Amino acid sequence: MSWVPDAAGSSYDLDNLPYGVFSVGDTPPRVGVRIGDFVMDAPAVAALGGDPGDGPDLATAWARPSLNFFLSLGAPTWRIAREWLVEVLGHEVHQERVEPLLVPVDDATMHLPFEVADYVDFYCSLQHATNVGRIFRPDAPALPPNWRHLPIGYHGRAGTVVVSGTTVTRPSGQRLPPGSSRGAPTPEFGPTRRLDIEAELGFVVGTPSPRGEPVPTSAFAEHVFGVTPLNDWSARDLQAWEYVPLGPFLAKSFATTVSAWVTPLAALSHARVPLPGQSPPPLPHLAVEEPAGFDIALEIVLNGEVVSRPPYASMYWSPAQMLAHLTSNGASLRTGDLYASGTISGDERDQRGSLLELSWGGREPFGSGRSFLEDGDTVTLRATAPGALGGRIALGEVTGTVLPSV
Amino acid sequence: MSWVPDAAGSSYDLDNLPYGVFSVGDTPPRVGVRIGDFVMDAPAVAALGGDPGDGPDLATAWARPSLNFFLSLGAPTWRIAREWLVEVLGHEVHQERVEPLLVPVDDATMHLPFEVADYVDFYCSLQHATNVGRIFRPDAPALPPNWRHLPIGYHGRAGTVVVSGTTVTRPSGQRLPPGSSRGAPTPEFGPTRRLDIEAELGFVVGTPSPRGEPVPTSAFAEHVFGVTPLNDWSARDLQAWEYVPLGPFLAKSFATTVSAWVTPLAALSHARVPLPGQSPPPLPHLAVEEPAGFDIALEIVLNGEVVSRPPYASMYWSPAQMLAHLTSNGASLRTGDLYASGTISGDERDQRGSLLELSWGGREPFGSGRSFLEDGDTVTLRATAPGALGGRIALGEVTGTVLPSV
Repeated sequence: MSWVPDAAGSSYDLDNLPYGVFSVGDTPPRVGVRIGDFVMDAPAVAALGGDPGDGPDLATAWARPSLNFFLSLGAPTWRIAREWLVEVLGHEVHQERVEPLLVPVDDATMHLPFEVADYVDFYCSLQHATNVGRIFRPDAPALPPNWRHLPIGYHGRAGTVVVSGTTVTRPSGQRLPPGSSRGAPTPEFGPTRRLDIEAELGFVVGTPSPRGEPVPTSAFAEHVFGVTPLNDWSARDLQAWEYVPLGPFLAKSFATTVSAWVTPLAALSHARVPLPGQSPPPLPHLAVEEPAGFDIALEIVLNGEVVSRPPYASMYWSPAQMLAHLTSNGASLRTGDLYASGTISGDERDQRGSLLELSWGGREPFGSGRSFLEDGDTVTLRATAPGALGGRIALGEVTGTVLPSV
Repeated sequence: MSWVPDAAGSSYDLDNLPYGVFSVGDTPPRVGVRIGDFVMDAPAVAALGGDPGDGPDLATAWARPSLNFFLSLGAPTWRIAREWLVEVLGHEVHQERVEPLLVPVDDATMHLPFEVADYVDFYCSLQHATNVGRIFRPDAPALPPNWRHLPIGYHGRAGTVVVSGTTVTRPSGQRLPPGSSRGAPTPEFGPTRRLDIEAELGFVVGTPSPRGEPVPTSAFAEHVFGVTPLNDWSARDLQAWEYVPLGPFLAKSFATTVSAWVTPLAALSHARVPLPGQSPPPLPHLAVEEPAGFDIALEIVLNGEVVSRPPYASMYWSPAQMLAHLTSNGASLRTGDLYASGTISGDERDQRGSLLELSWGGREPFGSGRSFLEDGDTVTLRATAPGALGGRIALGEVTGTVLPSV
C-alpha cells in the first residue's frame, strides 16, 4: 500500500498506477502517474535519481507530451518502470523527496495520453450483435454468418479520438426523413436525431510489429500496453443510411472519447477470467489460452444516474484474438494503435451498452422516458476491476457533454 | 521550359514539379523535386540563398524526412515555393549553382513522401460500383440506394500505406472454400486466391481543419496539396467473407501503395474538366463549382503489358465533394490525411480499374488468360494529365511485385 495520503485502500493504490499526460498551468505536458487523488510528476521524480540505474532513461521518456515513446520501449521496460513506481510510491523512505512532486488531480489539466496511430473498432459482444440484428433486421438471422468465426472489425478515424472531458457537438449528416422509402430515397441533411453512445474497452498498442508478420494470440501482452474505457459516439440515423455496403463512416468519425488514464495490463492480472465459451471453436490462428477474458465492470452514467452496468466479462471475443485477427493478413502494428472491443452488452436489459439497445431502437424508452441523447446531456463511463490488493481498481473515467449542432 | 538537361518538353518539365522524399547512400532522407530525370535536392538548393527572402524558411522545411511540415505551412506557402522552383529551374542564370545539386533519379532512394494521418477510401466511380453490384449481387439493383446521394467511403489502415516499389506479400486470411454454403459456413484460413488491385487516385491533405467545422467544397484547394496514383491492393475472397456488416477490413489493410511523388494541384490546372453529370443534383452541402473533375489518364500495366486505361475524368463524385462529405459531420482534417477515389473504371471493358472487373469475377479471363494476381506478378499504375506547356505531365508511377505467402 502507498504512503501517499488517502491512497492506501483507494481504487488508485499501488496495484493500479495508470499513466496519463498532464500539465499544470503553463508547464509543458508530460507523463503523470495516478496515485490516490494525485498525479505524480513522473519525469521529475525519475530525475531525482530514483530512476533504476541500469535501466532505461525514464526521466527522458516521460518528459514527452505523449506516452508513445515510453510505450515504444516495450514490455521489459514497462515492467521495470512499474517495479520502480511501486518502490517509490510504496516505501516511506521516498516520501520526503517525492511528495512535493505530487499534484492534486483537480489541479492538473489532462491531455490525450497517446497519439493514436490507427484506430480499429470491433464488434465482440454476442449480446450486442444479437440485439442490433434483432432491432435492425427483425426478419433475418440476428447474427451475420461470419460472426462466430472471426471478430468483425473496421477502421475508425484516429484523428478524432479525444480525451475525456472534451465536449461533443451534435453532428450533422445525411439521413432519411421518417417514412422515407429506401426504394426511392430522398435524404436530407441536418443534425442527427439519434445520437448514441457505445460503452467499450480500448486497447493501446505499445510494441510495434513488422508488416508481413502476424502477431499470435500468445504475444498479446508483449504488444498491448494497457486499456482505457472508450465511448464510441454514434449517430444512428446517419449510420443507417450510409453503412451499406462499406460500413460505418461519418456516423462514428466525429468523436471517440478515451480516458485520460491508460491502465497497464499488469494492473489487470487479478481480473483475468475465462471467456464465456466459443462455439464453434475458433480456427487455429485464433485459438487462445485461457483465461483470456477480463472481469471489468462498467457503468454508464447519464446526467448523474447509472442507466446500465455492462460486464466486460461477457464478451465473446478476447482482446488477444482481436489482435491476432487484425494482424493475420500481415498488417503491421505501430506504437499508439488503438483497438476497441465494440459495445459491451450483457444478458440483462440493464447491462446493455448503447442507448439504441436500452431503448430498443427508440421504441421502448428507458429510465425517465429517455431514448437517444439530448443537447446538454452528460455521459460518463466508469469501470472497475479486481486489483491485486484485495479491493477494486478504477479505470479512468470517460466523460463528455453534448453541445447543440452549429 | 527548364534548363535541366532533357527536362524541357519531357513529362517532368516546369509545369509538373512533383515533390518526394529521397536519399542517396547514407545521407538523411529529405525533400526532393523531380525535374526531368533528376531529383533536385530541395533543402540544399534553398540553402544556397535562392530561397525567397521574405518568405517561409523552405531550406528548413525541406530538410525533414517527410513532406508533412511543408504541407502544414498551407496553400500560400505552396504557391511561393512553386514560383521559386520555376524561377530556379527555369532560368539559366541559376544553372551553375543548382546543377551540382541534381541527383539522377536512378541514383536516389525514394521514401514514403508523407506520414499518413488518416486514410479514407471512397467508391466514386459509377461504372465500378455498377460492375461490382452486377458481379456480386446479380439479382439486386446494382447500386445501393445511397450511392447517388453521397460519395460512399470508409476508413482504411494508414499504417500499411507504402511507397511505390515496396513488395506485397500475398496475405492470408479467412475465406469460404469453393462451394461452401453461407447458411452453414465452414471458413478456412489460408493465402488469398483472389488477390486484386484497384487503380485509384489519392488526395493528400496539407492544411488541417478544426473539429466541428465542416470544410466546404469551395475550400478544396486550400486544404488539399496534391495527388498520387494509388493501388488499393485487395483480397477478394477475404473481402466477400468479412465485409458484411461493417465493411472491408483485412481484405484491404495489408498494403496500399502510393507514388514516391506527390503532384501539386497547381500542376493540374489545365487538367480540370466538368464532371460527367450528377443526377439527382447533390444536396447543397455537396454542390460543387465546375469544372470539378480532372482529366487524368491512367494505365494498368501487368508484367509489362498495358491491360487497362481507366479514365479519371469518368468519375461521378469529385474530390472536392469527397472532402466536403468527409468533414460534413465535423470530423477534423490533419496534415497527411490521405483520401482516395476508389477504383476508377470507365465505360469500356479495357477501362476497368480492377482485375475483378476485367475478369468479371474471374469468370471471363482477359489478356493471355489472366484473372487474379499470381505470385511474381508486377503491377504498375501510370498516369498522365494535360500540362500547362502544351504537353502531358506524368504523375509518379505506382509499382509493386507480389511475393508468395509466408
